[in-house]
Amino acid sequence: MIRKPYLLFLGDAPDSLAAKVAQGVRDWSPDAAIGQYRMEGCQADVGLPDLTIEEARAAGIRTMVIGVANRGGVISKAWKSVLTDALANGMDIASGLHNLLRDEADLVSAAAAHGCDLHDVRVPTVQYPIGNGQKRRGRRCLGVGTDVSVGKMYTALAMDREMQDRGMKSTFRATGQTGILITGGGVPLDAVVADFMAGSIEYLSPDNDDDHWDLIEGQGSLFHASYSGVTMALVHGGQPDALVLCHDASRKQMRGLPGYEPPSLTELRDLALKLARIVNPNCQVSAVSVNTKAMSDAEARACLAQIETETGLPTVDPFRFGAGRLVDALPD
Amino acid sequence: MIRKPYLLFLGDAPDSLAAKVAQGVRDWSPDAAIGQYRMEGCQADVGLPDLTIEEARAAGIRTMVIGVANRGGVISKAWKSVLTDALANGMDIASGLHNLLRDEADLVSAAAAHGCDLHDVRVPTVQYPIGNGQKRRGRRCLGVGTDVSVGKMYTALAMDREMQDRGMKSTFRATGQTGILITGGGVPLDAVVADFMAGSIEYLSPDNDDDHWDLIEGQGSLFHASYSGVTMALVHGGQPDALVLCHDASRKQMRGLPGYEPPSLTELRDLALKLARIVNPNCQVSAVSVNTKAMSDAEARACLAQIETETGLPTVDPFRFGAGRLVDALPD
Repeated sequence: MIRKPYLLFLGDAPDSLAAKVAQGVRDWSPDAAIGQYRMEGCQADVGLPDLTIEEARAAGIRTMVIGVANRGGVISKAWKSVLTDALANGMDIASGLHNLLRDEADLVSAAAAHGCDLHDVRVPTVQYPIGNGQKRRGRRCLGVGTDVSVGKMYTALAMDREMQDRGMKSTFRATGQTGILITGGGVPLDAVVADFMAGSIEYLSPDNDDDHWDLIEGQGSLFHASYSGVTMALVHGGQPDALVLCHDASRKQMRGLPGYEPPSLTELRDLALKLARIVNPNCQVSAVSVNTKAMSDAEARACLAQIETETGLPTVDPFRFGAGRLVDALPD
Repeated sequence: MIRKPYLLFLGDAPDSLAAKVAQGVRDWSPDAAIGQYRMEGCQADVGLPDLTIEEARAAGIRTMVIGVANRGGVISKAWKSVLTDALANGMDIASGLHNLLRDEADLVSAAAAHGCDLHDVRVPTVQYPIGNGQKRRGRRCLGVGTDVSVGKMYTALAMDREMQDRGMKSTFRATGQTGILITGGGVPLDAVVADFMAGSIEYLSPDNDDDHWDLIEGQGSLFHASYSGVTMALVHGGQPDALVLCHDASRKQMRGLPGYEPPSLTELRDLALKLARIVNPNCQVSAVSVNTKAMSDAEARACLAQIETETGLPTVDPFRFGAGRLVDALPD
């Protein structure tokens, strides 16, 4: 687990999009993210107090989280001096970058000298078991998408927050780099070796109280030729009781797959349910979560109403209208 | 690629089952396997000439293939002296053992000293691409199983041999350790990192002549909770034109999954076809391959006839009755 609280490193981000990981951690882990660190020329701001390394140390920061993409695929000298300073002040560093911290000799030696950890959350650190398919106690909800990048993580996080607000027992279970940085732990599923994918999700979502819900972060899409195997492992390893269909209403072509159209929501519903019931015959499709960000409020309402009619399922955009109905729709 | 011809190392195999990898290589790669090496006490015999290391060298052997399981998960001293001798005589070594050759310092230094290669076929050696889903030229056939270990590799090898005998253009594409040792190359799919599974199969089965068939070795089962993600990647990365349903008529429970029953062949047919058509709308289920080894000839014929009636598909046990009808059934 990554130790909290966090200092979010925004580096020399050229714009706010480059710092979207930091924004995600700030939005979804507000208790953990208590400061930001911006270098000269940084064009991003996630609205936290700017702290120097010394101030961060005094504030009890345990980990500096790299919340920004690096440029040109290298960890620059300018970054290095800040990261080394953080290590010298006793902070761990956590990163989801493709370039691994552990491959940087100067960071490795600084971390060793100061007794700090380098967390490369792209790399699994656990030897996961082979999946065993045994029924686990507790309830599980998984988001499955018509395509990749349609809002599955956001949907699960919004449902978890709503359930926490209601005093329900729930846990967001991260399966991707941003989710892991938000929660401090999880399974970087896209980097797990094929034979252990389903087992890694069983490991991530173990037995729990009968009235506890795991909100498992979805990945990929059953209909996406590049990543469908990863999604399949989530459906079978996750053993969901409820599936939430996730969809981007503006997507006309599968992301990264020219010539492929996204499936209809009813096709996704039927296929995902058939697959999920192989491991959990009681699984139900409970609701639809739609990303309507390209629409006006009126257009969004019309779109949601139309999908609700087509599918017969409660349909909401949790970003625009809240996740309440998604939680209401979970099976008893 | 692993250099041929091979000397099959049977070591101190306690029985013929322990040497089943050697038997597979001998059966399916008869031109490559020209000798065997047995240590004192070896109880296996795959019917090849016993060669000393010196005789093997004189016969032009390029690679010693470990065709036997090791005992207790260690590469013993007795093995080491034979393997080192082979390296000293200019042979490479290829192994599918869980213990990697590359983790044995004495073998590594001997290989380096003599300019030989150590092939651990459990470990990918290629940085596979992300799958792109683009339609490739040539035809592809994939075996999909009601369960794991039902004869998918055997079916693909038998079809390839039948097609070669007929003068058709075909290639067996190995996706597991034994298949890789048989052919000298392939993708160890169970060891590929999740994000690259589908891409590794696209890499394995590239564009080819319009009348060429790749017989892609299946893995896992869409209905097996532990490995279904691997199978899904084969279906979407393999882009099959034809699916052959593979089944073990004696299997009452999914292997390694207490409480799970295998699906019916019609359930498998419908699910696999739906998934395959996401990437290849022209895909067809062409035939059923049944492992009837637990039956008498009369029982087997009755079983095959019954399945043929139920599914409406040509149904054969290629081990017992040949793969001819499986090849006949391929779509034009």
